[in-house]
Amino acid sequence: MTARKKTSSIVLLLSGPNLNLLGQREPQIYGKETLDDHVATCRAEAEKHGLSLEHVQSNHEGELIDAIQAARGRVAAIIVNAGAFSHYSWAIHDALVTFEGPKVELHLSNPYAREEWRHTSVLASAVNGSIVGFKGSGYRLAALAAAELLGVAKP
Amino acid sequence: MTARKKTSSIVLLLSGPNLNLLGQREPQIYGKETLDDHVATCRAEAEKHGLSLEHVQSNHEGELIDAIQAARGRVAAIIVNAGAFSHYSWAIHDALVTFEGPKVELHLSNPYAREEWRHTSVLASAVNGSIVGFKGSGYRLAALAAAELLGVAKP
Amino acid sequence: MTARKKTSSIVLLLSGPNLNLLGQREPQIYGKETLDDHVATCRAEAEKHGLSLEHVQSNHEGELIDAIQAARGRVAAIIVNAGAFSHYSWAIHDALVTFEGPKVELHLSNPYAREEWRHTSVLASAVNGSIVGFKGSGYRLAALAAAELLGVAKP
Amino acid sequence: MTARKKTSSIVLLLSGPNLNLLGQREPQIYGKETLDDHVATCRAEAEKHGLSLEHVQSNHEGELIDAIQAARGRVAAIIVNAGAFSHYSWAIHDALVTFEGPKVELHLSNPYAREEWRHTSVLASAVNGSIVGFKGSGYRLAALAAAELLGVAKP
Amino acid sequence: MTARKKTSSIVLLLSGPNLNLLGQREPQIYGKETLDDHVATCRAEAEKHGLSLEHVQSNHEGELIDAIQAARGRVAAIIVNAGAFSHYSWAIHDALVTFEGPKVELHLSNPYAREEWRHTSVLASAVNGSIVGFKGSGYRLAALAAAELLGVAKP
Amino acid sequence: MTARKKTSSIVLLLSGPNLNLLGQREPQIYGKETLDDHVATCRAEAEKHGLSLEHVQSNHEGELIDAIQAARGRVAAIIVNAGAFSHYSWAIHDALVTFEGPKVELHLSNPYAREEWRHTSVLASAVNGSIVGFKGSGYRLAALAAAELLGVAKP
Amino acid sequence: MTARKKTSSIVLLLSGPNLNLLGQREPQIYGKETLDDHVATCRAEAEKHGLSLEHVQSNHEGELIDAIQAARGRVAAIIVNAGAFSHYSWAIHDALVTFEGPKVELHLSNPYAREEWRHTSVLASAVNGSIVGFKGSGYRLAALAAAELLGVAKP
Amino acid sequence: MTARKKTSSIVLLLSGPNLNLLGQREPQIYGKETLDDHVATCRAEAEKHGLSLEHVQSNHEGELIDAIQAARGRVAAIIVNAGAFSHYSWAIHDALVTFEGPKVELHLSNPYAREEWRHTSVLASAVNGSIVGFKGSGYRLAALAAAELLGVAKP
Amino acid sequence: MTARKKTSSIVLLLSGPNLNLLGQREPQIYGKETLDDHVATCRAEAEKHGLSLEHVQSNHEGELIDAIQAARGRVAAIIVNAGAFSHYSWAIHDALVTFEGPKVELHLSNPYAREEWRHTSVLASAVNGSIVGFKGSGYRLAALAAAELLGVAKP
Amino acid sequence: MTARKKTSSIVLLLSGPNLNLLGQREPQIYGKETLDDHVATCRAEAEKHGLSLEHVQSNHEGELIDAIQAARGRVAAIIVNAGAFSHYSWAIHDALVTFEGPKVELHLSNPYAREEWRHTSVLASAVNGSIVGFKGSGYRLAALAAAELLGVAKP
Amino acid sequence: MTARKKTSSIVLLLSGPNLNLLGQREPQIYGKETLDDHVATCRAEAEKHGLSLEHVQSNHEGELIDAIQAARGRVAAIIVNAGAFSHYSWAIHDALVTFEGPKVELHLSNPYAREEWRHTSVLASAVNGSIVGFKGSGYRLAALAAAELLGVAKP
Amino acid sequence: MTARKKTSSIVLLLSGPNLNLLGQREPQIYGKETLDDHVATCRAEAEKHGLSLEHVQSNHEGELIDAIQAARGRVAAIIVNAGAFSHYSWAIHDALVTFEGPKVELHLSNPYAREEWRHTSVLASAVNGSIVGFKGSGYRLAALAAAELLGVAKP
Repeated sequence: MTARKKTSSIVLLLSGPNLNLLGQREPQIYGKETLDDHVATCRAEAEKHGLSLEHVQSNHEGELIDAIQAARGRVAAIIVNAGAFSHYSWAIHDALVTFEGPKVELHLSNPYAREEWRHTSVLASAVNGSIVGFKGSGYRLAALAAAELLGVAKP
Repeated sequence: MTARKKTSSIVLLLSGPNLNLLGQREPQIYGKETLDDHVATCRAEAEKHGLSLEHVQSNHEGELIDAIQAARGRVAAIIVNAGAFSHYSWAIHDALVTFEGPKVELHLSNPYAREEWRHTSVLASAVNGSIVGFKGSGYRLAALAAAELLGVAKP
Repeated sequence: MTARKKTSSIVLLLSGPNLNLLGQREPQIYGKETLDDHVATCRAEAEKHGLSLEHVQSNHEGELIDAIQAARGRVAAIIVNAGAFSHYSWAIHDALVTFEGPKVELHLSNPYAREEWRHTSVLASAVNGSIVGFKGSGYRLAALAAAELLGVAKP
Repeated sequence: MTARKKTSSIVLLLSGPNLNLLGQREPQIYGKETLDDHVATCRAEAEKHGLSLEHVQSNHEGELIDAIQAARGRVAAIIVNAGAFSHYSWAIHDALVTFEGPKVELHLSNPYAREEWRHTSVLASAVNGSIVGFKGSGYRLAALAAAELLGVAKP
Repeated sequence: MTARKKTSSIVLLLSGPNLNLLGQREPQIYGKETLDDHVATCRAEAEKHGLSLEHVQSNHEGELIDAIQAARGRVAAIIVNAGAFSHYSWAIHDALVTFEGPKVELHLSNPYAREEWRHTSVLASAVNGSIVGFKGSGYRLAALAAAELLGVAKP
Repeated sequence: MTARKKTSSIVLLLSGPNLNLLGQREPQIYGKETLDDHVATCRAEAEKHGLSLEHVQSNHEGELIDAIQAARGRVAAIIVNAGAFSHYSWAIHDALVTFEGPKVELHLSNPYAREEWRHTSVLASAVNGSIVGFKGSGYRLAALAAAELLGVAKP
Repeated sequence: MTARKKTSSIVLLLSGPNLNLLGQREPQIYGKETLDDHVATCRAEAEKHGLSLEHVQSNHEGELIDAIQAARGRVAAIIVNAGAFSHYSWAIHDALVTFEGPKVELHLSNPYAREEWRHTSVLASAVNGSIVGFKGSGYRLAALAAAELLGVAKP
Repeated sequence: MTARKKTSSIVLLLSGPNLNLLGQREPQIYGKETLDDHVATCRAEAEKHGLSLEHVQSNHEGELIDAIQAARGRVAAIIVNAGAFSHYSWAIHDALVTFEGPKVELHLSNPYAREEWRHTSVLASAVNGSIVGFKGSGYRLAALAAAELLGVAKP
Repeated sequence: MTARKKTSSIVLLLSGPNLNLLGQREPQIYGKETLDDHVATCRAEAEKHGLSLEHVQSNHEGELIDAIQAARGRVAAIIVNAGAFSHYSWAIHDALVTFEGPKVELHLSNPYAREEWRHTSVLASAVNGSIVGFKGSGYRLAALAAAELLGVAKP
Repeated sequence: MTARKKTSSIVLLLSGPNLNLLGQREPQIYGKETLDDHVATCRAEAEKHGLSLEHVQSNHEGELIDAIQAARGRVAAIIVNAGAFSHYSWAIHDALVTFEGPKVELHLSNPYAREEWRHTSVLASAVNGSIVGFKGSGYRLAALAAAELLGVAKP
Repeated sequence: MTARKKTSSIVLLLSGPNLNLLGQREPQIYGKETLDDHVATCRAEAEKHGLSLEHVQSNHEGELIDAIQAARGRVAAIIVNAGAFSHYSWAIHDALVTFEGPKVELHLSNPYAREEWRHTSVLASAVNGSIVGFKGSGYRLAALAAAELLGVAKP
Repeated sequence: MTARKKTSSIVLLLSGPNLNLLGQREPQIYGKETLDDHVATCRAEAEKHGLSLEHVQSNHEGELIDAIQAARGRVAAIIVNAGAFSHYSWAIHDALVTFEGPKVELHLSNPYAREEWRHTSVLASAVNGSIVGFKGSGYRLAALAAAELLGVAKP
């Protein structure tokens, strides 16, 4: 992993189904910010630590798996907010396991204040850590977490 | 919603995986009619109430989500027979929640006469109502239900 | 069943406990219409297809069973909204099984938006199909569904 | 109980909801014999042991409870085939507990060869024993069982 | 509710199946007092607070529902000891929900010292509060509770 | 099976582990009679119907299976009280399935008045019917049941 | 217990964690009254029946157990509102079992209108009875219940 | 099926998500061989029995369903290793049901030595048989199994 | 294990309870072949790879455990079709764990097309792999699997 | 039991399936000592308290039941390490219940550090106490426990 | 809350039982840093945003509740790592609910990589968000999260 | 651990809540001996093996955790009877894990003869072994077990 850190300072941010509607959908839960706003927040924090940010959003499970596979050996860390796929996609789980760098799971809202089926994440056992419930601030925290896990966080 | 009703009289009918095989697959459960037959039944009833019908069938979960997202602000109501996706696709559930117009869930066969795992629908909590077990007639009932929910049903 | 259709054009509508209070009880869930309003809606649709409608309401489980038994050989189809009995009365379930004609189950509200114990219907496995969540419009849909199942629906 | 045996040789046979339809309903499960045939079989065996038989059938849970209460101090033993009430009527259970004489539970068909919900009897813990699965012969067996429990069985 | 309190000072006490046998049935659990004794205790406490008491006992679920419906707009408060119906009668639950005045649930014995199925009450979510396990004294406590909830309790 | 009935009038009674201790073990549950007493009761009833009785008791699961296999084509019916094996021996279950004649399961005590694990019988789905809870009288009832199932019961 | 009643007229009221914040915390659930208000209500009713009231509040599970142990042989009855400890403190349950006098469990709010985990009380099986859901009036009812259980209630 | 066997000797091997990474991912579980190695093993065995092998790998659930549908009437048998889709894709299950020829499920590793969620296959009820735990050798065994099921296996 | 392979080319085939009845028992599930036929099939395949076959059948769990223990250090591999013991004999599981050579589990029929309790094998976690659902062909596959696991399979 | 203690000073040690392999099987769990070593440890402690030790090991469930039955009235106490039978043999459970003297259950390893299915013992409810997790020392502790329970332990 | 933010810039860090042993206990899970190290990390980040940090560690559940109550109206935000109390202390949950400022839950290790009982936190529904699995870095992230929630985070 | 044994011969006996009432509380379950009697028994056995005994009893969970932490590096072994805390105190579990010396769990009564919730110990996975059900003798056995685990037991 030492070799990769030298050659790559890319963090890949993955956004799952329906997250492209952020800002329009259930603002009392998710806030008024759009996905573009969140990506900008995430990128700003990443760049403070010398990292660049790539972003992929898809409503297709297979495209997210392809993106994770394509990140192997090229990207330093992954931040993933898989939306509803978090609750049943063992295939994304398996793809994440194949990526050797740090992985951070991100949820905007606190699932414990919502429907029962949102309490379970099948991705949690495939990542280093999770950041849950901080709404838009979660994107900044996730970028800092990735920097910490890569050992490049500025003090 | 008042605004939409004026500018749109489109009902979107969504058909999930393997429904394109209707008429060939397990006719003792689903009957001999093809999906085209069902779409025609649905369209005939819709047109009696001044509505037009669009139809999308796909075996790909992501394409159905895309179609629901594209219907936002353009389509008046959605009828969805999601096939096996009904039983685990929380991503389609989330997409349906983002659509503000009436939503009708449709199943051809009575799930209680079939395997245990078909008893549960993860979409039921995201729609206005469900029509279950009336075979081909369900397509006529669903179109009438959509018209009733839109307030345009002819007596 | 062919013989019966000739000699009978009666549809029996059964209403279970507390439905006689409709219009007064929890209008935010059930609407402001009374049971008489709903019966009129159901009868109007039935008569469009050449069917007449009988109605029985009771708070007594045994009276509903008696009514189902008395319908055997005399009535063409049954529409049943059993209220709270839907969730535990296996005795009504067994009575419905003995009726050979079409049977339609009806619920005004979407049980998935309510208490957990309302998610299960012990009657569902004894009927041809279910219509759920369309409020007052459900009575029109149920009458059309009965007509479809009897093969007498006008186009 | 000694006192009662002297003053009473009556066995009360109770039949629950829909059993009045026996012979017409699902003959592949319950056989072609009517309830009258079964009562006659039961009575013949009872009389061989010097017992007389009373029979009550009702589709009303409350009437069966009334009948059990009225049997207290007057009747020697109870045989009960409660039909679907067997699976949820804790009220009949409680009524049976108040009857001090022998109680025999009877089911025509083997519940383990049928739907899951028929596997449980809430009456089983309130009776001396159960006779299950012998179709029409069960009525003879139940009468003999009552005679055995009363200590009056002829060899 | 203010209007009712002026026009009505009636408390309705409802007793479910088999409670008419109190004093004869399992005295080690329910004590030696008869139901008449308990009604007298309840009435004495009610009258201390200017309230009168009506009493209805039935083994028939439907009659209890009828009584609750008839109490709407006429009676100030309901005290209900539904016996075994407490554990499965969602229909009585629904009837209680339609009554707008205070509702007190009463059990003579502590269900936690008895069979598992007595631990659950389906009525609990439809009443203001519950009084459980105080044997005959529970009738006095329930009358005081009703007076407190009506705001007419004497100090 | 017609052929067998002609050539065989033997009923095989199987007794499982620890039943040889009957009369010494927990008499408050199983009564004071010994296994020999029960066999005599069973034989007496069988002989009334022209049947003879063979008896095998063993604490070894394999010996009971051997006995069932040896009964194929030679014995007319089997009565089995498998004791604790009833609750887990799928191997005895399978052996019973291979026997084409009538099979009666027998339990002396009412399992619903005992430990939870005694509520389940893995043999129940392999037999025609069960006789449960009549203590010693169960052996007479079982022999009669076998005779009834063979069609040779004397009136 | 007769001896104790003579030498002691003390009722011990125990209040568990966070109850000292009553009046400030979630008033829509618990009302505006403070714990001091409730203690005064309880004491007033106790003194009507010749009883005095001691009160202990603690956020420490061990201090509540110490208080129960110290009450043995000195105090006539215990009223306990253990707050959140009600749902998991088997140690308080065990301490209550060691106290031989009457014990009354008290909850201000109806747990069935709240989170699922508040539906279960591990103390219920260690007390004589429970008073649930009557808000501030519960303190008066509990004092009367204690007086009734001690046999000293004034009519 | 007779007709097909004449016109087709094709076996379709389907590989689900992440299997394209075999040889790089968790070699202690899946071995060092690549997917190409496994396909070659499978093809060699198939050709010994006069069968040819087609192979499709995809990370997209919909593409696998398309492939199964396209195989209808053209391909003789299907071997499917669906990877993580095995554990939740009821849509692939339904597609397999529509294919009339023999179907063999294949898992490289023994799921009982791994995480709990890998113990369940939702495909198992849609195939003829399963081959589990033989690592690379499983591909040879699966091809032979398909040949046996087609009745073309060479001795 | 290297040493053993040199000194032993014996494969032990174990057959559990009731398998001696193969060919007579439920031929629609297990086929018409006898156990001797299957042993011959298994031996033929084994000998193609230079292995000899020993066979032990028993209805006694203990005899199968004795056979496994006696195989330690003498036999190269074990194939076990434990019949119903597969579903609960943790003792056979433990015995298999003590055997250091390759172990193959074999089932003739597909348990997923049968009763629920046949879905679970307690032996699966003690063997290298399982071959399930190929009827008689399974014996050939198992011998080939053993040869593959021993590294002596002929190409 | 007083009578037996006078006439018998025998302790019966029972060892279940595969325990004869101790010292060879999974030494990291069970240690290097053989069963003979453990019996010697147990006997040495027993003899310190004036007791003699008999030992029976069997892989056959029926032989262990026979041994327990033969111990009735002849042996003072039983120590049982039933190996895998501990987890499902209700028949051994029932046999132990028939033995009136003290019974000590023994497990070498701590089941909570092993597979889930080893966490449950069906024998635990049939013995006086259990000694779990002390490896070879457990045999000394069990002998002392038997002496304590018999009231003959030397200080 | 506006008022508090002006008058208070204190963040309270709470540490539950056994956390005082960090650095000595299971370093492979929790790392080599001591609790003092972590408090310093947390304080450094807090001070970057103009916040001061108070720290309380206790092995006593009651002391943690006292500390939360004392923080009301005085402290701006709470960070809580409750150790094992996280998994059952509903009393700490209730105390946290009474605190109106932001609350951040913190766990050092990823519970999904550990024992099953560590997967559940009863505190999660009482906090704004959780930070899980980042070892020592979690203390920095938690301080940043508190600053973000208070709206005082420096960019 | 070698170093500690040299410098320490102290065994710490911990007693949880309500154990200070032993001898007064439920003597039919726990016997008539007081906690002092049990400590003396434990000490006598410990001293036979050259060990001294310290004893701490508390009703406060936190005090028991403090005591375990203070034992680290000073005490040779711990014997713990945590009373009701055994069933839910994961905090005591975590404290025990931090203690490196031998740990023995002790219960006086057999939990399987008592309430369901006493069947589970959350401490079992944190200790070397458990001694359960031997009443007062358990204290002697536990001291011997500690000596055995320390390797200092006298023969």
